[in-house]
Amino acid sequence: MIVPLITALVYQEKIMNIISYLIPMGGLIVIGALLGYFKPAKDTRMGAREGYIIVSLSWLLMSLFGCLPFLISGYIDDFFTAFFEIASGFTTTGASALTGDQLLNMLYNGGHSLLMWRSFSHWIGGMGILVFILAIILESKDGSALHILRAESPGPQVGKIVSKMKISSRILYLIYVAMTLLEIIALNICHIFDENMTFFDSLIMSFGTAGTGGFATTPASCALYAPCSQYVIAIFMLLFSINFSIYYWIIIKNFKDVLHNEELRFFLIVVIISVAMITTQILHLYANTEEAFRHAFFTVASLVSTTGYSTTDYWSGIQGTWPIFSLMILLFLMLCGACAGSTAGGLKQSRMLILGKYTGTKIKSMISPRSVEVIRLDGKPLDKKVVDSTVAFFVLYIMVMLVCALLISIYNPLMEKDYATPTTMITASLSCISNIGPGLGAVGPAGGFSDFSWFSKLVLTFEMIAGRLELYPLFILFSRTTWKKGL
Amino acid sequence: MIVPLITALVYQEKIMNIISYLIPMGGLIVIGALLGYFKPAKDTRMGAREGYIIVSLSWLLMSLFGCLPFLISGYIDDFFTAFFEIASGFTTTGASALTGDQLLNMLYNGGHSLLMWRSFSHWIGGMGILVFILAIILESKDGSALHILRAESPGPQVGKIVSKMKISSRILYLIYVAMTLLEIIALNICHIFDENMTFFDSLIMSFGTAGTGGFATTPASCALYAPCSQYVIAIFMLLFSINFSIYYWIIIKNFKDVLHNEELRFFLIVVIISVAMITTQILHLYANTEEAFRHAFFTVASLVSTTGYSTTDYWSGIQGTWPIFSLMILLFLMLCGACAGSTAGGLKQSRMLILGKYTGTKIKSMISPRSVEVIRLDGKPLDKKVVDSTVAFFVLYIMVMLVCALLISIYNPLMEKDYATPTTMITASLSCISNIGPGLGAVGPAGGFSDFSWFSKLVLTFEMIAGRLELYPLFILFSRTTWKKGL
Repeated sequence: MIVPLITALVYQEKIMNIISYLIPMGGLIVIGALLGYFKPAKDTRMGAREGYIIVSLSWLLMSLFGCLPFLISGYIDDFFTAFFEIASGFTTTGASALTGDQLLNMLYNGGHSLLMWRSFSHWIGGMGILVFILAIILESKDGSALHILRAESPGPQVGKIVSKMKISSRILYLIYVAMTLLEIIALNICHIFDENMTFFDSLIMSFGTAGTGGFATTPASCALYAPCSQYVIAIFMLLFSINFSIYYWIIIKNFKDVLHNEELRFFLIVVIISVAMITTQILHLYANTEEAFRHAFFTVASLVSTTGYSTTDYWSGIQGTWPIFSLMILLFLMLCGACAGSTAGGLKQSRMLILGKYTGTKIKSMISPRSVEVIRLDGKPLDKKVVDSTVAFFVLYIMVMLVCALLISIYNPLMEKDYATPTTMITASLSCISNIGPGLGAVGPAGGFSDFSWFSKLVLTFEMIAGRLELYPLFILFSRTTWKKGL
Repeated sequence: MIVPLITALVYQEKIMNIISYLIPMGGLIVIGALLGYFKPAKDTRMGAREGYIIVSLSWLLMSLFGCLPFLISGYIDDFFTAFFEIASGFTTTGASALTGDQLLNMLYNGGHSLLMWRSFSHWIGGMGILVFILAIILESKDGSALHILRAESPGPQVGKIVSKMKISSRILYLIYVAMTLLEIIALNICHIFDENMTFFDSLIMSFGTAGTGGFATTPASCALYAPCSQYVIAIFMLLFSINFSIYYWIIIKNFKDVLHNEELRFFLIVVIISVAMITTQILHLYANTEEAFRHAFFTVASLVSTTGYSTTDYWSGIQGTWPIFSLMILLFLMLCGACAGSTAGGLKQSRMLILGKYTGTKIKSMISPRSVEVIRLDGKPLDKKVVDSTVAFFVLYIMVMLVCALLISIYNPLMEKDYATPTTMITASLSCISNIGPGLGAVGPAGGFSDFSWFSKLVLTFEMIAGRLELYPLFILFSRTTWKKGL
């Protein structure tokens, strides 16, 4: 919380804001000291279960402390909204439960530091709080921390990159920082042509992009920026949604692995086809081809990377709703998500690849029951366990998404009836579990989650954290068996 | 086609109608004779692949011939609409691509026999064309016809009942006929209080209910019938969506198996809870509690049994759209479908049970990796293969449903923009693959599939047949590998 504290000092914000950071900071120091004091016995081994529990509890605690500044400073007066907001930040979802007025109030009434804290939480969340912490204070040397990383890293495979935990987490961290700096610089160059892209905005946008989060400074998201800034943001959204191992390989000049990466190829093909199809369909809605292409490119990049920024309102904008086929493509992109090993959420492209191949082999084995089912990825046969757990993950993902969509539709007295449609409920649920941000209907780019009831917000918060942690850890935390057996 | 032919004669319809049945009948006789002539060599064994191909081709051929009466008689002038309509009949979907005018034209301008043919196709489809044919002309005695039955019978398990193919298919057939007759009688008793329930209507409704289809005589579906008729139809919809083995067990007084049937229990609980929740929510929309309960009960029975009749318009009726939570419950019921071994479509309750237990054990095995994963159904442990194929089925089902939802959204020039929403596309796709009939949005109870383009209709027709045959057979038919290896 040092970053927003500095921001508060720079902007000379009122004393209450500064106090609002000092209190949770103090609390965290006390807890940290306590945890350090109660060290586990030397011979305690950390198993998968303990790893999952540590991660889940950390996220819940981080979010609980993280929402304090909003509440203490008084910019948000409702606990569930603040909790939703910061969980949305840490999980890099970028879904906002704030009304437009609340957000503008922060911007114009001395709340820059809170906006900074909100967006900085994306950046922290982006690489995974734990990898972040690990990179700095990793002390355990027996490799048991791998369990934490396994719970934390999105995607079916942790990859070769984690062979040496400490070093590699530092490399990932460096790549992450370097790319964020690169974006900040690029956006400041854009400032020459774009007066809306201030230094503050460039920071907020870069943090939001790096974490594939999606919090912006105004309710207009990226609509007010000049085209050059929009292109820069769109390109960085895509860059941050590619498997970070790719960058590592590029650095160590291992171009063979880069070229053989099936997920990357699949991802690029999906993006190119989607942009092309949407551009042709929305051509008549915009002034010229460049504008249509820009909006299509930006929106595809934003949703596939699960960032959630927007330059145009594809749901209820002045140019009208985008054609239904375009919306369905966007829905698909939202479901798929980006590459494994990136900061993005969602099912992940590699899982979709495996699932596609899985269904293919299933059909084949129906035709000739004795055919051998081998699923290959990057030319190498996949372990049956990976395939099984991918399938199990998909089933769990869809189930949780649907059940939560049902739960959040129970009671929302504030929501206008026209907006309380199945589209809204399902895309809200999908958007949260995939850590995207916007959806369709009431939660479209121009809307938000402010009309949901406290119960719905709690369900969606659970979904965001569950989605970020790839489902399992949080279930284990809440399962009775875990606690029965004792820790 | 003898039934509609008799109807045409009874109603003294114009000569063109009669010809429209005679031509396809003649064609079928010729093809039947040809197929009888080209008997396979005695030593040809029928494998799973051949079974699937026979079933898939039969459905396609039946539908091609089945749509001829509509085209020849001139009541439908478009091949894709007619093909959609009869496929919707045979697959017991009950989704209509006719406009209200076209339907009323049939009713008032001497098209009773066509309405009869349309609904009778439900009845034929209900038990599965092949079981139907098997029950009458089954000649193969070496059990190889089991492969056809396996492709045909909905649900994960064919059950004990098929131990003696010929006898048991006759028993199923008898139960089916007896229950249909029972409903016809019950509806005719209702006629005393309900002048709209004519003898013709009672036949149409009974065929539609028995096959869990959903074609009615008017665009108003069941809204014009008196409450007593509506209750009778609702109860029979539920009866026809229960596993037929249950009736068999009741006949042979095996009550123990009935009571131990987990699927039946789960099904009843789902129905009761859904009705209770929806009733309380729509109470304020209707005149009194009885009316709200009746509409809730009827709609739940209609959607869970994948029949698709309606007494009220829950999407765009005069009383307004039902509350979103009710709609989401309906969406869930549509996804789940009814019991395996019934005439209903959908994923089936037993699959949902297995999937629920599957996700449970998956989470458990994450907590303690050495725990044994045994999934029990009806107290007996399930074969791992059954679980695996259930999971594979779910993945395939969701994938096909989503891809088809994407395909049908490509091009529908006739559809009003307000109706071309994701809700429409996804529920249309879900409704067809689950063989339900109505959905939400443009395909709600008051709407229909008439605004879809020919391409969308073709995709939806494919989905209906694929859903009816539980996906695999049709994929095998269209797969290249099948034909490469030769028959």
